[in-house]
Amino acid sequence: MRTAYHGQLDHLAAQLGEMCGLAGIAMKRATQALLEADNAAAQQVIGDHDRLAAMRAQAEREAFALLALQQPVAGELREVFAAIQIIADVERMGALAVHVAKIAEREHPKRVLPEEVRQCFADMGKVAIALGDSAKQVLVSRDPQGAARLHEQDDAMDDLYRGLFGLLIDDDWRHDISVGVETALLGRFYERFADHAVEVGRRVVFAVTGELPAEDEISTY
Amino acid sequence: MRTAYHGQLDHLAAQLGEMCGLAGIAMKRATQALLEADNAAAQQVIGDHDRLAAMRAQAEREAFALLALQQPVAGELREVFAAIQIIADVERMGALAVHVAKIAEREHPKRVLPEEVRQCFADMGKVAIALGDSAKQVLVSRDPQGAARLHEQDDAMDDLYRGLFGLLIDDDWRHDISVGVETALLGRFYERFADHAVEVGRRVVFAVTGELPAEDEISTY
Repeated sequence: MRTAYHGQLDHLAAQLGEMCGLAGIAMKRATQALLEADNAAAQQVIGDHDRLAAMRAQAEREAFALLALQQPVAGELREVFAAIQIIADVERMGALAVHVAKIAEREHPKRVLPEEVRQCFADMGKVAIALGDSAKQVLVSRDPQGAARLHEQDDAMDDLYRGLFGLLIDDDWRHDISVGVETALLGRFYERFADHAVEVGRRVVFAVTGELPAEDEISTY
Repeated sequence: MRTAYHGQLDHLAAQLGEMCGLAGIAMKRATQALLEADNAAAQQVIGDHDRLAAMRAQAEREAFALLALQQPVAGELREVFAAIQIIADVERMGALAVHVAKIAEREHPKRVLPEEVRQCFADMGKVAIALGDSAKQVLVSRDPQGAARLHEQDDAMDDLYRGLFGLLIDDDWRHDISVGVETALLGRFYERFADHAVEVGRRVVFAVTGELPAEDEISTY
């Protein structure tokens, strides 16, 4: 019985890791769709989200069943408790990738982004993919040290996001308001993706140590 | 023992309702800060958020203790399971109010919003406050019908948000890009506040009925 129980816990943890991997891939493809006006990539992100949503529902059912049937305590209860919260964060990461992909799809075959912010988005995309990877690794390794790396990557994202606003309000900016607004919202989707990855790390630290690290202060945006 | 247990469940539910009420008040004050360049209101929203964050931590501890010590099953387990998810949504509603307040604070004594979008934000503020109230009522009454009302209010918010973008891309728009970007992001904060209130309703329906209503499709933004 204990073996089946631990098998269920391991399965739940593996599912979270897989969901995180899918969210990272979705953001990678969404960035490709955005930068290269790649409509096939956009469509794939949008179509694949159903799979992530189904995995979310399945993971929630498994977490519920674990609580109902196994009544875990101590560290194992923390695992399930954290999983319930992590599931929501990871699904949101995937949804943010869909937001990016839907804008690319709507504007296709036009490229959404003006030349001067393309590099910034390429960099935000790289950091987002790295954050997805790191969050997945933390979920699999249960290593609280990995959560610190997530923070560093999030700091890099915050710097890029601030840099994006610097470009947007620069006197040299010569694009329509609609382009500016879309660029700002797209930036926000990357920044929120990073925040959710950091949140995954915080919850893993709670599961492993019983202590929840402090949250970052809420920024202006 | 059963009595103490139900007292704990009731206390958790009451805390969620109170948190929701605080998030609604925060968005009301943040809207006042935004529309009237009322710096005292902005400061109050920012300062009060610590209380909501502390309530979140306390509610999570209580939910954890309920699972660990009482090992609820069936409907009572659904209550606690839903509570864990609702806590995160309600805290996020409060954080979005802080985002609005911080922009008002940063721009003070200047008014952030151009004249032509003020009415739209006044309306979004009203809908947000109504959503906070409705979510609180649903939490207290456990009435799944109330969740339907949340959906209607969210539809109203979506209409306002779309209308805001109509104003932003109108040829008559004559403001700096920075104003346009800030206006768009502010609109997004209200729209997300509404989404989280709807999510609270979905989770209450799950707690009461065991069925989780379908999510809305992800929109372009």
